[in-house]
This record gives sequence, C-alpha cells and structure tokens, in this order.
Amino acid sequence: MIRHPSFAVEPWCLLETSLELSHLAQTESVFALSNGHIGLRANLDEGEPYGLPGTYLAGLYEKWPLPYAEAGFGYPEAGQRIVNVTNGKIIRLLVEDEPFDVRYGQLLSHQRRLDLRAGTLQRTVRWVSPTGASVAVSSTRLVSFTQRAAAAVLFQVEPIEGEMQVVVQSELVANESLPPREEDPRAGTGSESSLRSELSEASDARGLLVHRAQRSGLRVGAGMSHEIDGPPRTDVSAHSSADLARVTIAANVSPGRPLRVLKLLAYGWSEERSIAAIRDQVEAALAGARHSGWGGLLTEQREYLDDFWEHADVEVDGDPELQLAVRFALFHILQAGARGEQRAIAAKGLTGSGYDGHAFWDTEVYVLPVLTYTAPRAAADALRWRHRTLQPARRRARELGLAGACFPWRTIAGQECSSYWPAGTAAFHVNAGVANAAARYMHAVDDDSFEREAGAELLVETARLWSSLGHFDSKRRFRIDGVTGPDEYSALADNNVYTNLMAQQNLLEAGAVLQRNPQLAGALAVDGAEIAGWLEAAESMLIPFDRRLRVHPQAEGFTEHQPWDFAGTASDQYPLMLHFPYFQLYRRQVVKQADLVLAMHLRGDAFTAEEKDRNFTYYEAITVRDSSLSACTQAVIAAEVGHLQLAYDYLSESALLDLEDLEHNTRDGLHIAALAGTWIGVVAGFGGMRDHDGSLSFRPRLPDALARLAFRFTYRGSRLTVEVAPSTATYTMREGEALEVLHYGEPVTLSCAQQIVCEIPPLAPRKPPRQPPGRQPQRRSIGA
Amino acid sequence: MIRHPSFAVEPWCLLETSLELSHLAQTESVFALSNGHIGLRANLDEGEPYGLPGTYLAGLYEKWPLPYAEAGFGYPEAGQRIVNVTNGKIIRLLVEDEPFDVRYGQLLSHQRRLDLRAGTLQRTVRWVSPTGASVAVSSTRLVSFTQRAAAAVLFQVEPIEGEMQVVVQSELVANESLPPREEDPRAGTGSESSLRSELSEASDARGLLVHRAQRSGLRVGAGMSHEIDGPPRTDVSAHSSADLARVTIAANVSPGRPLRVLKLLAYGWSEERSIAAIRDQVEAALAGARHSGWGGLLTEQREYLDDFWEHADVEVDGDPELQLAVRFALFHILQAGARGEQRAIAAKGLTGSGYDGHAFWDTEVYVLPVLTYTAPRAAADALRWRHRTLQPARRRARELGLAGACFPWRTIAGQECSSYWPAGTAAFHVNAGVANAAARYMHAVDDDSFEREAGAELLVETARLWSSLGHFDSKRRFRIDGVTGPDEYSALADNNVYTNLMAQQNLLEAGAVLQRNPQLAGALAVDGAEIAGWLEAAESMLIPFDRRLRVHPQAEGFTEHQPWDFAGTASDQYPLMLHFPYFQLYRRQVVKQADLVLAMHLRGDAFTAEEKDRNFTYYEAITVRDSSLSACTQAVIAAEVGHLQLAYDYLSESALLDLEDLEHNTRDGLHIAALAGTWIGVVAGFGGMRDHDGSLSFRPRLPDALARLAFRFTYRGSRLTVEVAPSTATYTMREGEALEVLHYGEPVTLSCAQQIVCEIPPLAPRKPPRQPPGRQPQRRSIGA
Repeated sequence: MIRHPSFAVEPWCLLETSLELSHLAQTESVFALSNGHIGLRANLDEGEPYGLPGTYLAGLYEKWPLPYAEAGFGYPEAGQRIVNVTNGKIIRLLVEDEPFDVRYGQLLSHQRRLDLRAGTLQRTVRWVSPTGASVAVSSTRLVSFTQRAAAAVLFQVEPIEGEMQVVVQSELVANESLPPREEDPRAGTGSESSLRSELSEASDARGLLVHRAQRSGLRVGAGMSHEIDGPPRTDVSAHSSADLARVTIAANVSPGRPLRVLKLLAYGWSEERSIAAIRDQVEAALAGARHSGWGGLLTEQREYLDDFWEHADVEVDGDPELQLAVRFALFHILQAGARGEQRAIAAKGLTGSGYDGHAFWDTEVYVLPVLTYTAPRAAADALRWRHRTLQPARRRARELGLAGACFPWRTIAGQECSSYWPAGTAAFHVNAGVANAAARYMHAVDDDSFEREAGAELLVETARLWSSLGHFDSKRRFRIDGVTGPDEYSALADNNVYTNLMAQQNLLEAGAVLQRNPQLAGALAVDGAEIAGWLEAAESMLIPFDRRLRVHPQAEGFTEHQPWDFAGTASDQYPLMLHFPYFQLYRRQVVKQADLVLAMHLRGDAFTAEEKDRNFTYYEAITVRDSSLSACTQAVIAAEVGHLQLAYDYLSESALLDLEDLEHNTRDGLHIAALAGTWIGVVAGFGGMRDHDGSLSFRPRLPDALARLAFRFTYRGSRLTVEVAPSTATYTMREGEALEVLHYGEPVTLSCAQQIVCEIPPLAPRKPPRQPPGRQPQRRSIGA
Repeated sequence: MIRHPSFAVEPWCLLETSLELSHLAQTESVFALSNGHIGLRANLDEGEPYGLPGTYLAGLYEKWPLPYAEAGFGYPEAGQRIVNVTNGKIIRLLVEDEPFDVRYGQLLSHQRRLDLRAGTLQRTVRWVSPTGASVAVSSTRLVSFTQRAAAAVLFQVEPIEGEMQVVVQSELVANESLPPREEDPRAGTGSESSLRSELSEASDARGLLVHRAQRSGLRVGAGMSHEIDGPPRTDVSAHSSADLARVTIAANVSPGRPLRVLKLLAYGWSEERSIAAIRDQVEAALAGARHSGWGGLLTEQREYLDDFWEHADVEVDGDPELQLAVRFALFHILQAGARGEQRAIAAKGLTGSGYDGHAFWDTEVYVLPVLTYTAPRAAADALRWRHRTLQPARRRARELGLAGACFPWRTIAGQECSSYWPAGTAAFHVNAGVANAAARYMHAVDDDSFEREAGAELLVETARLWSSLGHFDSKRRFRIDGVTGPDEYSALADNNVYTNLMAQQNLLEAGAVLQRNPQLAGALAVDGAEIAGWLEAAESMLIPFDRRLRVHPQAEGFTEHQPWDFAGTASDQYPLMLHFPYFQLYRRQVVKQADLVLAMHLRGDAFTAEEKDRNFTYYEAITVRDSSLSACTQAVIAAEVGHLQLAYDYLSESALLDLEDLEHNTRDGLHIAALAGTWIGVVAGFGGMRDHDGSLSFRPRLPDALARLAFRFTYRGSRLTVEVAPSTATYTMREGEALEVLHYGEPVTLSCAQQIVCEIPPLAPRKPPRQPPGRQPQRRSIGA
C-alpha cells in the first residue's frame, strides 16, 4: 500500500493522496487512532462506505458460549469477544439534499494524513454532488493521550462556489450492522453487536447513550457535545432513540462562511457502576474536553508526543520508507498501550476486531520490550493487568492440576478463551513470556513499587507453575513434556527448547527477586526449600541437542521428523494451515514462526556463537513465516550471525506487514506485535542490543543500504542514544547516571560527560542460508 | 445386575424374575433383540415407563453440522447419528378403561427371559389394575435372523378371574420424544428424531408409515400387520396420521378365552428408492413373515441358532455365571453382526444410541476375530462394508495429504465424524486394524471371492497409507510420527509400538497377498517397486525399546514421562478423562487401555517371552482400565505370562461389564467389543489360541476355579473343538481336512480320525504384578 501511487512517503506523516475503495478496510486499520483506552478505526466521517466499522474500548467484551461437538474436561466454556461499541465518529452531511457519499457524484480530491507528531488524522475532500454542488469538506480527528476518555473531531464544510444549504447530522450509533463473518480463523468470530439500550438522551447539541452487553453484563456509556461555528441562522436540534443520539445542524454556507463543528466524544464503561454513574462519568469527561477546547486538546496531544519522540525516536538514514515505517510502528505501539491502564493490550490493539480482540503471549514477548524502553509506564500498566488477572490464572492452574498461576492463551478479561487446547492451554510458554517481560521491566526500570506490588508475585506464581509442570526424570534431568512452543506448526512435544529455556529463566528470576527482597518471600509464602527446588529445576533443565546434526531440535525428536515436502507445495498453499491439516504440520519439520530462533534471541546467553550459526541455518531452511511474529526475530538472529542483507530483508517485511498488507488481513486490524518487531529488528538486529540478566550489550552493524541508524531509549532512568554508522557506534547518555554496557563484549562506561565512539569490527562476507523455495523474504533494495 | 436377586443364572437363558425400574434402561440394552439389520431395545410393550426408547436400522443415520469455535483445515463438517426410527414395538393395553402401566396398580409378578437358543424375549406379567381388575399379560418378541427385514411379537392378555373388556392398541410411532441429552461424552449426542412424514396408511389390521430423515435424506418405511385370535365380537379398527399408525382391538376376555395378537413388523430403508418402492419393500417383507407364520418364524430362528451354537459354543465348567455371560456375549455379537450385510457393526450394535451409533476400530480388532471363527459370513459382510467405504476413505486420505485410503475414526456411512482430531484422525491404527481383520479372515476362511473382490484391495490401500504416512530417517529406520495409538490417554506420539507393529503386518500382508495373486497386482496398479517399498518399510520399522528399563515404551519417550500421581487420585476421579484435562493425561505415564499390551496379543510374534513378562508388569502398574476394551486384552496376556487368577479376574470383568453395568452406561447400549473380549479372553486367554501369520497355535491353561473349558470354532472349513482340562488339552476335529497346529510350540496334526490329547506343562506359581491403587480387578471367586 505504501508503494501504491496514492501514498507518499514522508518522515513523520502517513499520507494518502487519493481514496481507493478496494483498500478501504485496510486503511481503516492503518489510520486508526487510539490511546490504548479508546480505539477509533478510520471509518469515513459519513459512516459509509466502510470496510469494517469499529469503535472499541479496551477490556469491553461480550461473552459467548464456546461450542464443542466432543467436549473434554477443563475446556473453557465461554468465549470473549471485543464489542464494536457505540460509534461516535459519524458525521453525516447533506449538501443541497444530497447525501455526501464518495461513491456518488465526483470526488475531486481526497487526502488523509496521519500525523505522527500531532497525533491527529486529517482528512480533506473536494467533492461535487450528483446535482453539481461542490464542497470542500475537512475533518481532523484525535483520540486524546492526555484525557483518556475523550476524543474529538473538528469537522468543516464549505462550498467551493456559491451559497448552499448543508445539513450535518452528528451521531452516536449503537448496534451497527457489521459485515458477515470471515472464514479465515484469524479474523475473529465477527462480533455481532448485542448491546441492550439502557439510557438515551439528546438535547441542545448534546447526546448520550448507555448500553449493556447482554451476556458479560458490562455497561458502556458514550456521550457527545458540540461547539458549532456557522453562519447566522444556523439551526441545531437533537433527537434520541434506543440506539441513536443525533444532533442536527442546518446552515446556509458560502465560500468564506463555512460551517465548522467541533464534536467532543467521551466514553466510559464499567462492570459494576450504575447507569447514573456511567452517565456522569461520560458527562465529566466531556466537560474536561470542553474545558481544554480544541486548541488545548491539540496542544496537549503534541506535547505528549513530543515527549515520547524525544525519548524514543528511531532514525534510519538511507531508506525513507523504512524510516516512516519504523515511526509508524512506534506510534501504533504507543497508541495500543499508552493509556491501557491495567487492561490487556490486544493482538490488534484497538484497531480492529481480528482475533476477537484477544491478547496473546506476544504482548509480553514482542510489545512490552519496546514499551519497556520507550514508554515504561505503559509496560508497567500492561504487566499490572496480568497481575490483576492472577485470580482466574490461579483457578485455571488448579483446574489443570497445577500449582501457581496459569495465564490464558487468549483472553480479554483474564479467563482462558481458547477452544483448541493443543494450540491453547498447552502453550504454557505464555507464562514464561509474562515472567520474562516482568523481569526485563524490573531490570530496566527503577520502579520498586512494581516489583513489590506485582512483579515478584508474577515471577513466583509462574515459577510455581513450571515447578509443578515439569518433573525430574531418572537421570535427574528436569523435563517439561507434552507442551506447545511458539511455533504453531508443532504441538504437544517434549522439552521444547524455547519453553525450557524460558522456564529456566523464569525459575531463576523468581529465586533472584526473593533473594533480593527476602521480606517478599514471606509475604508470598515462599520458603527456602521452595526456592531451592526452583533453582535445582533450572540447573537440571533438559535442553535437547542433536549431536549428529550439531543443532538443537526445536523439541525432542524434532530433527528426526519427516521434512516437509516444500518442492510439492504450491505458492498458493501458503499459509499452510489453511491448506493442510494440523496433524501433517505437527509431525513434520516445518516451522510456522521463529521458535528455536526466538530462543536464541531471548535466551541468547544459552547458546554458543557456533550453535547460533548452525541452528539459524538449519531452521532457515524449514521456516515458512506463516506468522507475522517471525520475520523480526529472524532479522535479529540473521544480523547477529552476520547475514546483514537477509536481516534487512526480514526487517523490511516486518516493517511493511500492515502498510503493504502482506498477510491480507490488515482489514481486521494492525499486527501490533509485528509492529513491535520492527523496533526489535532495528534495535536488537542492527543495534545488536541485548539485555540478558539485566545488563545491556550491543553488537551494532548496519546493512549496506543504511548509512546511519540512531535509536533513543530509557534505561533505569537514563536517557540514551545509540548511533550506528558503517564502522563506528556512538553511545550518548543524554541524561542519567553512569552505566556500564558492553560493546562487542568489551565493557564501556557511559555517562553524560562524554560520547563514546567505538569501532565496529569488520565482518567477512558470508554465504546466506537458504529458505524454503518461494519463502525467501523479498530482497530489499532502496531503488525498488 | 446378574447378581441382583431379580436375576437367576441359567446356562442358556438370561432370566429376570422381577422388574426393577431403576435398572430399566440397562435391561432395555441387555434384553435387546437384533439381527444386525433391525435392532429393538427391550422397551416394555406398552411403551412406558422407559429408560431410552430405541428402534434402529443398521446404517440409517441423520446428519448434523459439527460445530467448532476454532476451525481447522480438514476438520469434518458433518456428524452422523443413528436415528431412533419408527417404533413398532408398542402394544398398549387398556384393562377395563385403565391403562396397563406397571407403575400403577399392583404388579403380582414380572418375568423376562432372553432365550439364547430360541432367539426370543419372553415376558410374562400378572397385574392388578388400580380398580382391581387382574390380568395375565405375556409377550414373546423376536427379530428374525432368517428374514432380516422382519420382527414379530406374540401378545396375549387373559383375565386372572372374571370377564372383562380389554382394548389393545398396536402402533407404529415415529418421532418419539427422547430423554434429554447426557453430559457424558460416551453417551452420544442424543439423536433428536427429525423424521419427516411422507406416507401414512392404516386399514383393517395393518398400518404403514414412510418417513425421511431431513438432512441425510434417507427414507425409512415401517409396516405392521396383525393376526388376531380373540373371543367372538372382537372389534378391530385402524387409524393413521403423520407419525402414527394404530390398529385398535377391543374384546371381552375371560379366563380360558384370552385375546391373542400376533404383530408382524417389517422395516425397509434406502437412500435412493422412492416412497412407493419402500412401501412395497415393507409390504413384501410382511407378506414373507405372514407366509412363515409365528410357528415358522420360531422354527427358523431356532434352527439358525442351533447351527450357530453347534459351531461356536463355549462351555465353561466351574463358574455358572461366567458360562452364562460367555454365551450371552456370543449371542449379542451374533445379533450385532449376523445380518449387517455391508453395513457397519456399531460399538453398541443396535442396542442403544451410545456413541451416536458409530462404528470404531474395535469392530475389526475385537468383534471380527470372534465372528471370523464363529460366524465367518458376518465377518466377511462387515469387511465388505469397509470395502464399500473405500471411496470416502480415499478422499479422506487425499484431504490429509496421504496415499491409499484412510478409514474414519468414527462413522456410520464411511465419512469421518470425529471432531477432535488428536483422538480421531490421528488414530491411524484403525487402518491397520481393518487390514489385520481382513488378513485374519483370509487366512482362516476359504473365501477366494472375498480376497479377490475386497480383501486384497483393503490390504493394498491401507499399505499405501502407511507407506505415505511414515518416512525413513537418517538411519534408514521407518518412523511413523505424530500419531495416536489405542490408549486414549496418550496422543500424537512418535512411533507408537502398537501402530508400528500393526502397520508392519499390514505392509507385509499386502505384499504377501499380491505375491500369492500376481494378477491382482495388475488390477490394483501395484508394481514390484511399490511392493518392495512396502517390504523395506516393514523391515525397517522402528520399534522403540527402553534399554534401561528393558521394556518397550508405548511410544518414543513414553517411559521418560512423569508417572501419574495415583496416590493423589481419589477413587471417584475415575474415569480420569471426566476429571482431568487431556493435556495432563497425554503427558504422563497413565494408560487408559491396553496399547502396548494389545500389541503383545495381536503381534505376539514380535516379542520375546521375557519382554512380554517385563512389559506386562510395567504396564499393569499404570493401566487404569477406563475403557471397556482393556480388561479382555489384559486377561489374554496375563494368562500368557502365567498369572491365571489375574487373567480370570480380568476375563470376568469383561464378561460382566454390561450384566453388572460396571461402566454405568449400559443404558446407552451394550459394549459389543467388550462382549467380544469375553470370547477372546476365554479362547486366546485360557485357550491360548493365536493365529499369527495364519497358523494356529495353542497354549491352553485353566485358572484354579475352572474345571473344564471347551470351545468350538471353524477354521478353513474345519469344525474344531478344543477342550481344556487342568492338565490336558484335547483337540477334536469334528469335520474337515487334516490341519497342523501348535500345542505349546510342538506341531500337532489334527484330523477327524482321532482326538489328540496333549499334556499341559506345569506352571510354577508366580507373584502377580501390581495395578494402580484401587484399580485392581475385582478378585473372582465362585463362592462370592
């Protein structure tokens, strides 16, 4: 898409210069606005045409019974799905009795601009109605980072020539009809809205609706108020019914005398609060937004983002498209997590209903590393959400016959919602992912209250889970059998290397946090014997290794399995899971996504350089990247083992996944983890940054195409910049206390006193590994 | 139940001497009549009370869409379930205006007798109505073995004293209401009838209904006609509506002047034939039954069964209950298969709707060995049914990316109906089971047309499946990875020993049949290279062995898995699958049912005596017998390795499974495979009969409790009797040509010329192995 003629590449804006209806659903995701609490898809102001209407609130879900033809003990009974809540984006326009609709009349121009520094979506349209009336319509939309319950749209209509009558209908609409459900399982189950009206009000230029999701019982309020600046004799009226609040504005406009409407929107939801309380909460948020006014909202938004970019920007010189894509990724990651405030960060953020709005393991493993170094408060909030769900996670562990807590494979509110247990329940590595993110946060951020209130308990409860899940075999090796690792083309294997290494770290970190804070051990009822048990399990962890091939099997026995018949697989048979049964995928050597390779990133300390090299080559040949979570990790390890062009190719794939709609499902929402993978690919790949055991190290190296890379991040309160040139790396501490890091294994002390410039050792050219036929990443070259 | 005071043990009859309403559903299964085509549960003539109304026709099913919350490629879309068809058993009785209902008034006596030689179910009742009228009611029911579309009931009512008016309503009732669906997954999904009426007729003493199952489109006709023998002025009328045909008979009866009604029933069904054709088919069957008359039907039935028992009886001296149970088992196996005629033999036969009326692998592996030696034509019919389903099985193989044919895990008509693939699709051993049964039949029965028309192709298509399912690893071992063996507490393992040994036999037998019949190779498009490939795979088959423990792991890695915590498992937590998630069961050393031990029976030639002994001890300690398919196999191997009391205990458990309702689900139908296991336990256990590679061998030995065992069977047309006493075995050929068998490894030539008496070598007493705590079989002692 970004290479489509209707897009222009700018360093700080995503700009669409014409409207392509065939890309509409995709652009609704790409241009979506969110603050982590409210999410507005970039549906056109006038409501139609649409790809997928979408207005979401983090954590607001409906329940549905999960069907099973053959039930089993411990199968989750209820699913959860994100609700398309009351749509407050709608501003319909009648021009001389003719509805403004881009499908009719003549569209003279149509431009949308997502401004990554302003935090706004601007739209400007010039349109001639079927009856010949020509108007200029513009809107600027924002979802406030500073006032989490509020959003706003500044809407303006002005004739291009002559005076004319216009009618603007600004609405709140509940229970919108949605497109029919997709066959693709990744699309989610198509949340049919089922909100029951509890209150509807409209008067003057204001309206408010309160609804309740019938099965989950969650109550949601949406309110709007308007500031109208129109010609004399502008009429305003209001109407409401169960699923509709409408403010109607009629005016005679002329060139230079436009009608300008500021629509302020507010949302609130609660499991427990009354109708009156929700109404007042929404009204209060509207009052706050009115108090700031449009100018105030814009200023706050800009300041919030200026601060973010000041501490988190990534500069990529030599590839303007990648530069934009990286900033686009950071912006959407921030949007997904900024104000989540103890709600889950979903796989699609709040940009679409894909995967039913569920959060998975990739939030902790892909998204939180980025937020930890760029917006640590958002990372803490997300981890505190996990902590808040300890109660259902403990219940789930008991139900499964395990100790500690077992976090769900997919969920909105904390309960397991996966109905296919071999790829759900059995993927216990999610728990190690939570622990990994918590430990990283505690190492990287000075936040004692987090460690005390949430972090230690997360580590302890997940360590208890591993301790009960594994067992010591006859040789006193600690085995974890019958579980599913990250690669979704394998399941129920013994001793998955990723899982075992992550569990090992989990056990060690849990021991370490209690040894650092002995008083917490008492509070969490952990005694010395329990800690000793964790450490013994960690030390005895079985990590299978194939001595013949000198590679790590992804899990025990993996390297003996039949190779996939790549030669007999046609290019239109990817993604494989849509064309082959699980049983064939699980039993063969074919990898959907980085699994052993991901272990080499997150637990790089557990592999020798030679193992990394051999393993990477082995798994490259059988990894098909049918998951958006793979390319970035392959970029990281490709860079580490010295295949820089390949790393660049993978990084570009991750960065352009949604902008180019490479998986053909951006319509359902953005791939937040792949966006996070873009940052990871840059920082951990070409920056070579690692944070094993809480110490920072760098092995930066650029691909030929890039002239310079600079990334900013925060570590233990220090503000750091790493700048990478072809043969040198420059480390700058902009703020903070002296810190020791490693540059290619050599200790370097960073401080505000001086920039440190280090040589990058030369790299001998090497033959890159091979991928399955047809599954090579597209070779990135700037001229293309 | 058989030990309940209301039962009496007779050698040839199952006799119930009083009616226990709490056992009603169970007795409906136990007393069910069937000829393999029509099945009538033993519902009371008057229709109510009932446990589960049931009238079934082999192969007649309804479809239903299988629901999935998360779908996957290749998941079956439609389920099949047996239909409770038009009930022709109903004969209601009004005694002086009062409905005959055992729940009201006073039941003076109630007796039911299933006569295993007559093939009838007799019922005699003496009842006093609430208003004081006393009557003797009797019925005799049969489902004809000789006229497969026909059944009959002779019904009689006679006052005990005084004259009184009685009204008999003899009916056909479609779409009966059924009890609500069970939670237990073994119960099946509770086939709500959904038959659409197409024709209903009644006149004189006759009635006929034609219905169609709405989704499957199958059409079923039921007809009745009556011969009425009553006092003068007996009135007869007829009525019909969509779901009802009724013949009403009113008479004044007195002692010595009873009303006697012979109800003849006939059924027909078809996928393709018209309403008129079905009607005529039913009418013709009725005409045939009328032509034979009641006396003729009884005589034919007796002759059919006399012939069966003459060639198949098993005598057990010393345990009258076991004697009855063994004959009961043989009778029901015959009922399940006698006239199936190329329809599936379901897990429950035609005795209930459990498991939705599906057939599984145990038909071939448990039931067909019995039928092969006792009623070979029924075995051939069942195998020809599999052959008839080759087309969907080939389609399924293609869908799964495999060659040859892949038979379904559960089905009625041949399509896969399992919605949980790890325990369905992945249990490929069903295919080797089909091949095993076909090969056994071809070795044991001189039936060239079967080999030519069905047997060879079954072997070839399943061999092709295995050939494509496995692969040669780096050491040229043939591996079969990621499949599920018989034990349902494991799944998706590599190199399951049972599966690999059975596949090995399958490949060898396929090669052998074509080498015997080179002309068939051409017809089946098999060339020498393909056969060579099968033989190489068979020779290279990987059979894992744990050198440390010196036992075979059930599958690779099994013996390294965590032991199940038996000490922490309460007795009410069995069956485990209703109290623990699959994931915990699959990853631990806990065995639901004989798997490796079953391999030691069916592929006993692949194990040394020491291996059998060590393996049996190992698996005894972890086998919980949550499946009815286990005890009989454990009996066989316990006897082989010399634990005769244990074998006797297991055999008794298998034999009494339904008679004692040991699994608490006999209400849903009998466990036909466990009934077959009773014969197997006797013949392969205490008879020590094996038929590896088509040669017969015996190692007979009795437990202390039994004084004598004699079993009759047919082998290649020869009629044989093996009689086992404590220290001798006597081999008698009653008819046929000389045959060499092995007695304890020594060749013995049998012929009609002389009985052969052989010594049974003495056995040193041995300590029996241990079972999981609380899961020991009940110790059998005759005095108990």
